[in-house]
Amino acid sequence: MTDLLLRDVRPWGGPATDLLIRDGRIAPAGSGSAAGSSSAAGSSSAAGDVQEIDGGGRLALPALVDAHAHLDKTTWSRPYRPHSAGSSLASLVDNERAVRGSLGPVADRAGALLDRYIERGVLHVRSHVDVDTEADLDSIVGVRAAAADRAGIVDVEIVAFPQSGLLIRPGTADLIDTAIDAGAHLVGGIDPAGFDGDPIKHLDTIFALAADKGVGLDIHLHDRGTLGAWQVDRIVERTHNLGLTGKVTIAHCFALSTVDDARQNAMVDALAGADIAVTTVAPGGTPPLPLKKLAAAGVRLGVGHDGVRDLWSPYGTGDLLEKVWLLAYLAGYRRDEDIESALRIGTFGGAEVLGLKNYGLEPGCAANLLLIAGATPTEAVMDRSLDRLVIASGEVVAGAA
Amino acid sequence: MTDLLLRDVRPWGGPATDLLIRDGRIAPAGSGSAAGSSSAAGSSSAAGDVQEIDGGGRLALPALVDAHAHLDKTTWSRPYRPHSAGSSLASLVDNERAVRGSLGPVADRAGALLDRYIERGVLHVRSHVDVDTEADLDSIVGVRAAAADRAGIVDVEIVAFPQSGLLIRPGTADLIDTAIDAGAHLVGGIDPAGFDGDPIKHLDTIFALAADKGVGLDIHLHDRGTLGAWQVDRIVERTHNLGLTGKVTIAHCFALSTVDDARQNAMVDALAGADIAVTTVAPGGTPPLPLKKLAAAGVRLGVGHDGVRDLWSPYGTGDLLEKVWLLAYLAGYRRDEDIESALRIGTFGGAEVLGLKNYGLEPGCAANLLLIAGATPTEAVMDRSLDRLVIASGEVVAGAA
Repeated sequence: MTDLLLRDVRPWGGPATDLLIRDGRIAPAGSGSAAGSSSAAGSSSAAGDVQEIDGGGRLALPALVDAHAHLDKTTWSRPYRPHSAGSSLASLVDNERAVRGSLGPVADRAGALLDRYIERGVLHVRSHVDVDTEADLDSIVGVRAAAADRAGIVDVEIVAFPQSGLLIRPGTADLIDTAIDAGAHLVGGIDPAGFDGDPIKHLDTIFALAADKGVGLDIHLHDRGTLGAWQVDRIVERTHNLGLTGKVTIAHCFALSTVDDARQNAMVDALAGADIAVTTVAPGGTPPLPLKKLAAAGVRLGVGHDGVRDLWSPYGTGDLLEKVWLLAYLAGYRRDEDIESALRIGTFGGAEVLGLKNYGLEPGCAANLLLIAGATPTEAVMDRSLDRLVIASGEVVAGAA
Repeated sequence: MTDLLLRDVRPWGGPATDLLIRDGRIAPAGSGSAAGSSSAAGSSSAAGDVQEIDGGGRLALPALVDAHAHLDKTTWSRPYRPHSAGSSLASLVDNERAVRGSLGPVADRAGALLDRYIERGVLHVRSHVDVDTEADLDSIVGVRAAAADRAGIVDVEIVAFPQSGLLIRPGTADLIDTAIDAGAHLVGGIDPAGFDGDPIKHLDTIFALAADKGVGLDIHLHDRGTLGAWQVDRIVERTHNLGLTGKVTIAHCFALSTVDDARQNAMVDALAGADIAVTTVAPGGTPPLPLKKLAAAGVRLGVGHDGVRDLWSPYGTGDLLEKVWLLAYLAGYRRDEDIESALRIGTFGGAEVLGLKNYGLEPGCAANLLLIAGATPTEAVMDRSLDRLVIASGEVVAGAA
């Protein structure tokens, strides 16, 4: 494998340096100079077995992490389609089941969106993928195919997701069981009380599945206020009881920002105690999660796109930096250290949620990098410049020097 | 003046057509075919006195309107500067007075931001410009110079704005008086109770100034809840009493979304009754304004950038479509007609706030247009494509066919 020497890049906005990439990893400091050739600055050249790239003073960030996607649902690469659903959760779910068959193969749409992710520097994705008694495992098969076509460039972790309900749609639990055997990585869940109607039976079922298969869980929880908070407590109990600490994520978790402060503090402590991760999509209609409180307690926290231009919503562009920007904006962040903390959620935080090994900018880390224009990390978030160079497993996969 | 024939454009996403621009205005339908030459599609050519431009099927929108800007404050075109202020209003105001002298001439910074506006298709701007006893009228002079350099391309309406207070900084009212004589278009105000400390005296002063000079008023009102609502009532009274209906704008008006429904309804009716306009900047930390209720009551409603990368906040890019997108996102809009209503606020709504004549896409309207890629207005808002062509007073001022 050819070495890659990235000249004049600034890791996380620090001083300009050279980064040598060897065997797909960031090499120890100092090994760069040994590999340096005499080729002129500003050029990209292959000298012997070292390819040099002029980073042009761009920031070097670890690749963006989308910690909550729905790749199977996107209409990306398809003609724009007016929104056709009502506003209730049930209406959105039913509309999707009725219309999705007309959208074309999952593998094509998910693949097109993954290509956009790669272009923007999003190289790690956790995607919920629908499993239901009408579509069976077709969506999982499609997303797996799209991911396989891009293996080594973008990593896709799949949650077998009972979008249409688990208990209200008998047979779905068995399908999740089969999905895990077929390569899905985590067991999903959705509003055990508010949507599926029986929180104890729902949670007992998905926790048993996860424990049995030895995989993690990622549970959609939109239920707000005390109903949501009560379910968080039930999730915490089961996480401890089944030895699943560190393997459970709660997505959205609107309950955190819709209860009083005392209840919020107790919930944050309970999540930290069970090492349960939280993901947000920076929603517009709900108060922002208590990001600083969660971080201070050590709760792993990621941000995701949610859907991108799908039957649920026309929003989303495949550029996770827009979600990072939105997260900061909605939190009222103005100071640079705060805006950088939002960027950390879109990078290191997501990596912690997904449990990525060797993630980051240190020697030994996998060379999955986003080089992007910006004087500082904050300016990069504010500008969301398209002047980017994306490196996956030590090779340039998008952009130009 | 050379005629301009825009081939293959879709006004507000409608069927593709040609638009003839004559004497800086949209010519009546049918006059286009008479002016058509035989030049090949896809090319831009000057045949006789008709310049043809291939619109490439882009949407044609009337130019975007920034109904609430602070051009004098921007650091646009300057190196990125970390945020240095505290979070209180007083801290932000004091920090700005202390630091602004180091930013370089207002005319240069405001001009650079106006150039960005033009590039993005924002051709009408109402800018609040600071007036205070330290900087005197320097900022007004600077913004007027920047606007004069771009006359005929972008229109700038100036509000003489007492950012540092009116009563708490004696002498400011006289400066506003002088500013209007020197060419500022409207009298400004700021939180008569919450910041300036004497709502009756503040409002009486600025209303007397406006009535005396025969100009309009645009009042910043961040005060929330019942304190804000009480001041809205006082503004409504004075608008009627001084014969200023149709000439007053309330900026931000957080009170509208922080009182109970009955009070909100009464406020909307009172605003409509006095023909008081409202502008929003799609803020993150406050519930969105009741856009549909305001529109249904006939209240003129615009959206603005607020500051762009200034000592108040690092946000803002000069692309008003981002604010339109944010307005729709925060309102929870998903259906196309709702997202189009947000785009109307960023175009026709802002034009109504500013009282622009001959604004729109009809024959006779001034040819200030944004051509932008997108299958529908909603897709244009979602994509915020940079594939744009901007026409001001009948001439191409940004982008390429």
